[in-house]
Amino acid sequence: MLFKKSYQSKKKGSRARLGEINTAYGTIKTPSFVAVGTKGTVKSLLPSLLKEIGTQVVFVNTYHLVTHPGVEVIEKAGGIHHYANLSLPLMSDSGGFQVFSLARNKKQNDSLKLKINQERENLKEKLAVIKISDDGVKFRSVFDGTVLEFTPEKSIEYQKKIGADIMMAFDECISYGVSYQYAKEATERTHRWLQRCIDQNQKLKIKNQDEDPRLKTHQCLYGVIQGGVFEDLRKRSAKFVVSQKIDGVAIGGLSVGESKREMRDQVAWVSPFLPDDRPVHLLGVGEFDDILDLVKYGIDTFDCVEPTRKARMGVLFELKVKSKKFKLEWKEVDILKGMYRNDLSKVDENCICFVCQNFTKSYLHHLFKNRELLAYTLATYHNLFVMERFFDWIRKMILEDLI
Amino acid sequence: MLFKKSYQSKKKGSRARLGEINTAYGTIKTPSFVAVGTKGTVKSLLPSLLKEIGTQVVFVNTYHLVTHPGVEVIEKAGGIHHYANLSLPLMSDSGGFQVFSLARNKKQNDSLKLKINQERENLKEKLAVIKISDDGVKFRSVFDGTVLEFTPEKSIEYQKKIGADIMMAFDECISYGVSYQYAKEATERTHRWLQRCIDQNQKLKIKNQDEDPRLKTHQCLYGVIQGGVFEDLRKRSAKFVVSQKIDGVAIGGLSVGESKREMRDQVAWVSPFLPDDRPVHLLGVGEFDDILDLVKYGIDTFDCVEPTRKARMGVLFELKVKSKKFKLEWKEVDILKGMYRNDLSKVDENCICFVCQNFTKSYLHHLFKNRELLAYTLATYHNLFVMERFFDWIRKMILEDLI
Repeated sequence: MLFKKSYQSKKKGSRARLGEINTAYGTIKTPSFVAVGTKGTVKSLLPSLLKEIGTQVVFVNTYHLVTHPGVEVIEKAGGIHHYANLSLPLMSDSGGFQVFSLARNKKQNDSLKLKINQERENLKEKLAVIKISDDGVKFRSVFDGTVLEFTPEKSIEYQKKIGADIMMAFDECISYGVSYQYAKEATERTHRWLQRCIDQNQKLKIKNQDEDPRLKTHQCLYGVIQGGVFEDLRKRSAKFVVSQKIDGVAIGGLSVGESKREMRDQVAWVSPFLPDDRPVHLLGVGEFDDILDLVKYGIDTFDCVEPTRKARMGVLFELKVKSKKFKLEWKEVDILKGMYRNDLSKVDENCICFVCQNFTKSYLHHLFKNRELLAYTLATYHNLFVMERFFDWIRKMILEDLI
Repeated sequence: MLFKKSYQSKKKGSRARLGEINTAYGTIKTPSFVAVGTKGTVKSLLPSLLKEIGTQVVFVNTYHLVTHPGVEVIEKAGGIHHYANLSLPLMSDSGGFQVFSLARNKKQNDSLKLKINQERENLKEKLAVIKISDDGVKFRSVFDGTVLEFTPEKSIEYQKKIGADIMMAFDECISYGVSYQYAKEATERTHRWLQRCIDQNQKLKIKNQDEDPRLKTHQCLYGVIQGGVFEDLRKRSAKFVVSQKIDGVAIGGLSVGESKREMRDQVAWVSPFLPDDRPVHLLGVGEFDDILDLVKYGIDTFDCVEPTRKARMGVLFELKVKSKKFKLEWKEVDILKGMYRNDLSKVDENCICFVCQNFTKSYLHHLFKNRELLAYTLATYHNLFVMERFFDWIRKMILEDLI
């Protein structure tokens, strides 16, 4: 069984729970953070460091891997676990989020062409979309000009080749600010696509089993709840998705421009409909305050670029815990500030991570000021370590019925 | 005793030898490669990886560390070993090489100003020189505008604060193409400076011992042979430097524009005068063919940026050894080439390093194409590993009297 709930919080109104997601590459104790490894690498970290940190699961992006190096070579290597030497549970997304960002940006191409000086990479990507239909999106790879296509069937096929333990159904990520009517149509489209993904997954599973009974059968599929900022659409979507034959549920289309209040409402609305026996993932959300607030709605896993992206900008987390009261406090240290040049204290006095045990603020400041590559490794290590310890506390708090 | 010779090659005319350099931070089996860690980090590598690779000694640059973070904070941290968590033998240079590159470039400032589009960092550095005298060089730090000074006394003071196990005397690195007269004057200046460095080192040693008998006394000092491309100046310099009360000898002013043939001649000229009982370092030289050719002149250690710099450009070493005949062959793999995108073979089929055991050419190509930070770590690891294995073979060949 993929998911096993081990404890249900007794706090009034709370759906928070402890559990385990069991995959062929190990068990994820939930609630858990999902570190982002977009292109098949958690930026700047050797896989062995993820083990040291205690990272339980890593997220990879199908769109990026399809674009480069292509899914064929990943499949030939035995899947992304082997290709990237990531021997831990992996999740892949459907490509939908990136593909629809491209599609949206295509409409703005004319104005974009004027902004020729903006980040060239971005522009090239935006101009690379060829055709958007109800069926999916066609676009030209910026790497070699190959025409690539994302449809529900293609997305599953790509994800099967990538071989992550948890796959996402292809969905339309609804922009913030669209009309009710558009959100309704997009949500219904996502539902139709979910059914096509389930069919395709079943078809490929049978095909793989015919070839080799061990092959790729470990992969499970999550359906994605959409509905935009509209309560009835969100609820309807939750009911529909949860009713399908899927292994888990994800909530998508969050953090696309709405306020934190709105984002949290969207999770609260669907909470009563979330499954008790299957895992629930929140796509693209996972700042400290989000996690602390959203776990109570029954969320098991959170992927978020924040700890790793901020690390590369020199923003280091500090976590303070008053353990008797379970009071969690967090702060950010901007290590590039001049005041740290001569500061020989640890980044986080309470942190027992390898970085805090061996390096000072002054050394990290020195590395960042000189854009030394080691800076990014040390900062990423530390921030992900803090996230894991934060989740240790979250799980303890659930066990104490405090969440 | 700093240096202990353990074997002298019996090959006719060879001065090649096996030995050990004993430092407070460990023993260096010679001949040895010295990995370059300019700013107190071997770019992209955690210190623990250096242990895995078998790196024996790391080179840090005084000029860069004086500029940022400053030697005071390094001293406050207990020296560079502690500051950078580098728990292995370290060498520092005198700053002379960089300081005189600045000085030379100052003369070209007017033409430089026209090339405003060239690498900005470089330009800023070049414009920062204030005054050059027989005593040393004054310049303005590009980091915070502080006026910094390099003189023989200052260089030793800086290096004492940095705290590397092996220090270099302050020398003038003679440009390629200068007149005999200029080279003669510069060489004599280097000799006068050597005596001032020895005095300053003695003075500070006594001072430190008064404060704390354990403090910084482990540091030893090498004198630097100069003389440019002129045989008599080189020989005279060798004789003078070796006659001084110093712990080791370095040969400087190589690879500054002359041909490989000329560079090797310069080493050959001084070879008969090199000490038998003290270690000999070759500054800034260490490509495969150089090492194989120059070990026979009695060189014990070589520092060179090539393996690490090439790694960051995606150029990976391949080493092939026909072990019965001790025939060493090397090749370079330009991993950015499109042909590697689908190549699931190892970077070097004969290599047992962590990178070759766990990753393929395709994955490395993918990381480099996407400028993923992990690319630089893996490539640097591999190239330094190959260099260590290359030196294993060099030492075996000496023991077999083949060099």
